[in-house]
Amino acid sequence: MSEYTGHDQTGATVGIVKKEYFTFTDQSDPLTLESGATLAPVTLAYETCGTLNADKSNVILILHALTGDSHMAGYYKAGDPKPGWWDIMVGPGKGIDTDKYFVICSNILGSCMGSTGPSSTNPDTGEPYGTDFPMITVGDMVRTQKALLDHLGIKRLLSVIGGSVGGMQVLEWTVRYPDMVASAIPLATTCRHSALAIAFNEVARQSIMADPNWNNGDYYGGKKPDMGLAIARMIGHITYLSDESMRMKFGRRLQNRSALKFEFGAEFQVESYLQYQGNKFIERFDANSFLYITKAADYFDLAREYGKGSLVNAFSGAKSKFLVVSYTSDWLYPTYQSKEMVKAMKKNNLDVSFCEIDAQWGHDAFLLPDPRIDNLITGFLRSVTQ
Amino acid sequence: MSEYTGHDQTGATVGIVKKEYFTFTDQSDPLTLESGATLAPVTLAYETCGTLNADKSNVILILHALTGDSHMAGYYKAGDPKPGWWDIMVGPGKGIDTDKYFVICSNILGSCMGSTGPSSTNPDTGEPYGTDFPMITVGDMVRTQKALLDHLGIKRLLSVIGGSVGGMQVLEWTVRYPDMVASAIPLATTCRHSALAIAFNEVARQSIMADPNWNNGDYYGGKKPDMGLAIARMIGHITYLSDESMRMKFGRRLQNRSALKFEFGAEFQVESYLQYQGNKFIERFDANSFLYITKAADYFDLAREYGKGSLVNAFSGAKSKFLVVSYTSDWLYPTYQSKEMVKAMKKNNLDVSFCEIDAQWGHDAFLLPDPRIDNLITGFLRSVTQ
Repeated sequence: MSEYTGHDQTGATVGIVKKEYFTFTDQSDPLTLESGATLAPVTLAYETCGTLNADKSNVILILHALTGDSHMAGYYKAGDPKPGWWDIMVGPGKGIDTDKYFVICSNILGSCMGSTGPSSTNPDTGEPYGTDFPMITVGDMVRTQKALLDHLGIKRLLSVIGGSVGGMQVLEWTVRYPDMVASAIPLATTCRHSALAIAFNEVARQSIMADPNWNNGDYYGGKKPDMGLAIARMIGHITYLSDESMRMKFGRRLQNRSALKFEFGAEFQVESYLQYQGNKFIERFDANSFLYITKAADYFDLAREYGKGSLVNAFSGAKSKFLVVSYTSDWLYPTYQSKEMVKAMKKNNLDVSFCEIDAQWGHDAFLLPDPRIDNLITGFLRSVTQ
Repeated sequence: MSEYTGHDQTGATVGIVKKEYFTFTDQSDPLTLESGATLAPVTLAYETCGTLNADKSNVILILHALTGDSHMAGYYKAGDPKPGWWDIMVGPGKGIDTDKYFVICSNILGSCMGSTGPSSTNPDTGEPYGTDFPMITVGDMVRTQKALLDHLGIKRLLSVIGGSVGGMQVLEWTVRYPDMVASAIPLATTCRHSALAIAFNEVARQSIMADPNWNNGDYYGGKKPDMGLAIARMIGHITYLSDESMRMKFGRRLQNRSALKFEFGAEFQVESYLQYQGNKFIERFDANSFLYITKAADYFDLAREYGKGSLVNAFSGAKSKFLVVSYTSDWLYPTYQSKEMVKAMKKNNLDVSFCEIDAQWGHDAFLLPDPRIDNLITGFLRSVTQ
């Protein structure tokens, strides 16, 4: 597969992968969500790489972030311009070595990348759910992932790994199914969304809902709320970067000109970049899915869900070995939030390694090539398998 | 005037104040702006407090932030629910003591609070300018303030004081009219807008321009782009607070309920607060003014304007004594930006005092009651008059 090179130095790749689907529950026995609402059927899109060993002891579950999908590594077909979203990490000889591990990534419930979400058909009406889709939680996402593993006959995970909203799912896994999780790597994440993080999500949602094309979520087949969704993405994108990275990446440089033109529109490179990110996003993501998944992130609060308000209590049943990673310039889920979870884990005598990586790239750092995180993950996984 | 108490401990107030207007230039001799465009007539709304002394040596110019106005202190009339925006600072015996100083505040060019801006009548058409209003800069704002001082017969300022975009005007004053400015207090500000600050402003502008009611800026007399402007304000408002202050003020507390309702809309207090701020803002501010003033802030770059790229060069002609103040939790204009300006001032052997105030309230800290800043300003002004 030498024609498909990932972003890593070796060019190693898992090669061609397939988008697979798992559907479960029906309307006679639907999934009851944490909100109390029911949902059926439920489909998850997923991808696997590597080979499951005989005793099924080499399974790693990768959990993706807000707008990610199941396509973590490799290519769907020859000629694809880009590999999966974590191809730098998942592959032969990479941080998560597919020569050793059987790696699964499923698209989260509520998304629009093959799993059941607001753009899926509501069996009651034959039309897309729109805002009739029930509210979901990170706990609901994890319960559907558990159903997928049951379906695949997998009883125990060597590790659950994910960043951001994926990291929330990692944490949820360790307290919801403690006996299934040997180890866990929550990256650039938090045990509960801060007021600041909720605030940014809420403004992004307001931006979508203010778009007349949103039409209370009923826009499938018509004009989509592209403007609102693009602005929501721009807001989100700013929070994924950092003051420092934006200074290095853009500074005050102008877009395609040497002098100010004194006009509205993208005069500075940073403006042009954000508009590009917004416009690219609307081609691949559904506005309603954005609404539902950001709400799930805002609801996430491990202390409330499992600890009667105490994070220490929340981890009292956890049994995993942990590697917690934060990034110095991540101001969306700052290091103090990772330290809080590490403290709560340690108070429960859990085996926890913590690393704050000095990186200027903000929250997005966990998605960028960095041998430090590769080495950390490789070493940690080796310590779990020994 | 004891019935009108400000936020300060003493309840001292300047009492009833008047909104005054100064109009200059006409179409035969218009103001040429930094963009090269011309503007006439130009009106500034302004307010004065205190008494001008015989030799006109006790004048302080207050410069307001993005959405502020000339109404800095006191009340327009008996029964007004709220005093001017800096009533905690400006009044008898206060940090800026109106028993000693003659204090002037003028509404900035481009605003909608009495000064000429996009909602003013374009004499060429008899209709509001809308986006036919020319682009303005912080330099243009300061030049119109200079015209107002000329009109009032004031040749020298004891001090120019302002925070945020007001602080930019302070800095502009010290390099543009060095002989007129004895001292300057730039608070919570920057010598140039960072990429991060530009990014937030741009997304806020996009939000306004995406509102169909914006109609390319031509909405006067019709439906206003209220949704877009409210979202723009919410975005801005988040940047005025801090992670810490939002945690203290809201945390994850729910609005008027004890359990999650799993619905869109304001479930968390922070969501409700932001929506309230957005909705309150649209009653008092013009969306086009927001566009023009944020652009002026984004353009602001003292090094580019005066120093051929060097901040040290930019201050080479400055003569003022400086008190530079930053706040620990201000992540919009972080302390390192104040330190950059202090360093550049010191390299020019200017008399500079610098104070970083330890405060958790983010960028907005400069508008909140705090005896430390009162004492700093009082002491600094005393040192200037001695």
